[in-house]
Amino acid sequence: MLMIPRGFKFSGISCGIKDKGRKDLALIYATHPCVACGMFTQNKFKAYPVLIDIARLKKGEAQVILANSGCANALTGKKGEEDALEISRELSVLLDVKESHLLLASTGVIGERLPVEKINKNLPLLIEQLEEGGIADAAEAIMTTDTFPKIYFIETKIKERGKKSIRVGGIAKGAGMISPQLATMLCFLFTDACIEREALKESLRIAVEHSFNRILVDGDMSTNDTVVALASGLARNPRIKMGSDNFSLFTESLSEVARELAKMIAKDGEGATKLIEIRVNGAWDEKDAHRAARSIARSPLVKTAIYGEDPNWGRILCALGQVKVKFNPHRVTLKIQGIKVFENLAPVINDRQELINKLQEKKILLEVDLRHGDHRTVFWTCDLTEEYVKINAHYHT
Amino acid sequence: MLMIPRGFKFSGISCGIKDKGRKDLALIYATHPCVACGMFTQNKFKAYPVLIDIARLKKGEAQVILANSGCANALTGKKGEEDALEISRELSVLLDVKESHLLLASTGVIGERLPVEKINKNLPLLIEQLEEGGIADAAEAIMTTDTFPKIYFIETKIKERGKKSIRVGGIAKGAGMISPQLATMLCFLFTDACIEREALKESLRIAVEHSFNRILVDGDMSTNDTVVALASGLARNPRIKMGSDNFSLFTESLSEVARELAKMIAKDGEGATKLIEIRVNGAWDEKDAHRAARSIARSPLVKTAIYGEDPNWGRILCALGQVKVKFNPHRVTLKIQGIKVFENLAPVINDRQELINKLQEKKILLEVDLRHGDHRTVFWTCDLTEEYVKINAHYHT
Repeated sequence: MLMIPRGFKFSGISCGIKDKGRKDLALIYATHPCVACGMFTQNKFKAYPVLIDIARLKKGEAQVILANSGCANALTGKKGEEDALEISRELSVLLDVKESHLLLASTGVIGERLPVEKINKNLPLLIEQLEEGGIADAAEAIMTTDTFPKIYFIETKIKERGKKSIRVGGIAKGAGMISPQLATMLCFLFTDACIEREALKESLRIAVEHSFNRILVDGDMSTNDTVVALASGLARNPRIKMGSDNFSLFTESLSEVARELAKMIAKDGEGATKLIEIRVNGAWDEKDAHRAARSIARSPLVKTAIYGEDPNWGRILCALGQVKVKFNPHRVTLKIQGIKVFENLAPVINDRQELINKLQEKKILLEVDLRHGDHRTVFWTCDLTEEYVKINAHYHT
Repeated sequence: MLMIPRGFKFSGISCGIKDKGRKDLALIYATHPCVACGMFTQNKFKAYPVLIDIARLKKGEAQVILANSGCANALTGKKGEEDALEISRELSVLLDVKESHLLLASTGVIGERLPVEKINKNLPLLIEQLEEGGIADAAEAIMTTDTFPKIYFIETKIKERGKKSIRVGGIAKGAGMISPQLATMLCFLFTDACIEREALKESLRIAVEHSFNRILVDGDMSTNDTVVALASGLARNPRIKMGSDNFSLFTESLSEVARELAKMIAKDGEGATKLIEIRVNGAWDEKDAHRAARSIARSPLVKTAIYGEDPNWGRILCALGQVKVKFNPHRVTLKIQGIKVFENLAPVINDRQELINKLQEKKILLEVDLRHGDHRTVFWTCDLTEEYVKINAHYHT
């Protein structure tokens, strides 16, 4: 049994947005209003659910998230906004929850309108099915080209008389249009911790910075990216304040959940066969580390070489050399799967077959040491395969 | 018969760097020392031939270019430099040309050493075959994953008593690792115009800015990118000076040659089936126009949609919205193949079938109007196909 944070119920059903009876509508319901905050796409074209959530989260409270897959409700004009608000009104009445406590999220094709009638007709069933154990259905209902639902939960003891346990968890979807600064991804995080609004916000910022902003599938940034965190307070711990020891503990837990969900998204990139972890060490500053890692993660030539299990290490350095990052080429070293392949501007491969064998593994580790400073980062991506092209050449129709 | 600029001879042979007897060694020989200049990759890891050319072109003169495919001679350590210099010495003796007048270019796999002996053994044959008509062999010998040789020549009358004609032309290779700020591309431009060194340099800068810096296949920037221009002066026109009418005429010709070669590179992107032209109008400044066009050109989701002949226009706007470009989303319009698909933040497609039909063409035009200023740009890329992945997953081995 998952240690679902206290105070949350979930459901997921098919309402007919997607074909073949696949689940496409998810509901997350807190039994009481929660402390809440969110982070959203930086894309200038923001989908209506994103614009609505940004406005509603200004007061830092929320109770319900309704999410659909199969339709992004982005770039759908004034009518797209009306569609979203019509659904929101209906759900508000059915649940007897203030509209301002209700968040929306959509993912799928851009430019097509939501089938409002289908959705509204199915809301009563969706509500009826709400239960603690409904998390798997909800995680499934937000999938698009994802191949597996993404769920992660942990329990942590916080420092307190009697060592109260708090629970933190979440669900996410990813697969395509995945790039740092949030991706085409939805992620809903829940905790039963009792926490101040500003502390939750800062904790989420830190967690996202080290998770969803460190993954990349194709480098495209969606119109719909959404990460929302809800804290029910039902763990009944003394309220966590910014900067306290418990704040650090909570942030570690939230970061772990976010990081594991982010890695699942990278691993489940469209058509991917391998998860690639890129570690950049010895960078002048954090920005340089990030820029270097991202350029390698984004390179189609690196991603196809790894798919082909081809030790074409030159492409990794080529991707590194093309961005503005401070380093001296003579000092750079590169390891693949723990094996040093490059040093002093020249290859140092003793056993090419060993390297080829290690590239057959499902998890690939690339380690660049710039030897130019003390900063480091970790970044995750996946390989690029024919399947990615197939999925995206024919996704719309 | 091509109007080859006066004073140049070419040859291209197979010396065994590539397999199956494919041509891999090209020689470009001017009968006299030329005014010369070059532009090179911005990648921090520069191949040895690039480093050598940069040094040798400081005096603005050159007479010979030796180019090989199948091996990049990049990241090969001190030995890579020695290899290049050994070949250069040998060629210098055989041709009786000063080493400082001899340029080198390599393209192919990174990190592998040049087979110096194979190359040097074949230099006499390469020299023996030099002739004006050898241009096609030379163009073929610099190909890697290119599917066709890239050659373009024009003749222009310049303003002068008797209207002297000058000839401008070039050969290029591209295919993969193609990104603005020069790509994995080699391009050698020749003219028989008589022109001042500084004027040729400025003319080349302008031509490259509007050609090779406006194409993108996969967004990766090579270690070996090279554009070199040689002017033999054998048209015997009065020397062209910076800023004169004839400077403008010459720059137009050089730009046309560069642009047509660049478009051939985009069209022949690895695995490509379509040439995509992206026009951005109404940008606040030139940088914004460039950034917007490049983001669309780079997007794997746009490129796969066009491959799938899928009118998934939302991806184009998504790619536009994710970069820092000044515009108001409400004012943006988008046309595909001349058909307006988006305006006032909403789709305006009347005849979806017409759009689908037009996407079956081989040349695709995307026009974004930001309606935020007076600046514009044109950019070229290609679609992304399963074939790109296949080529790059298995290129090394």
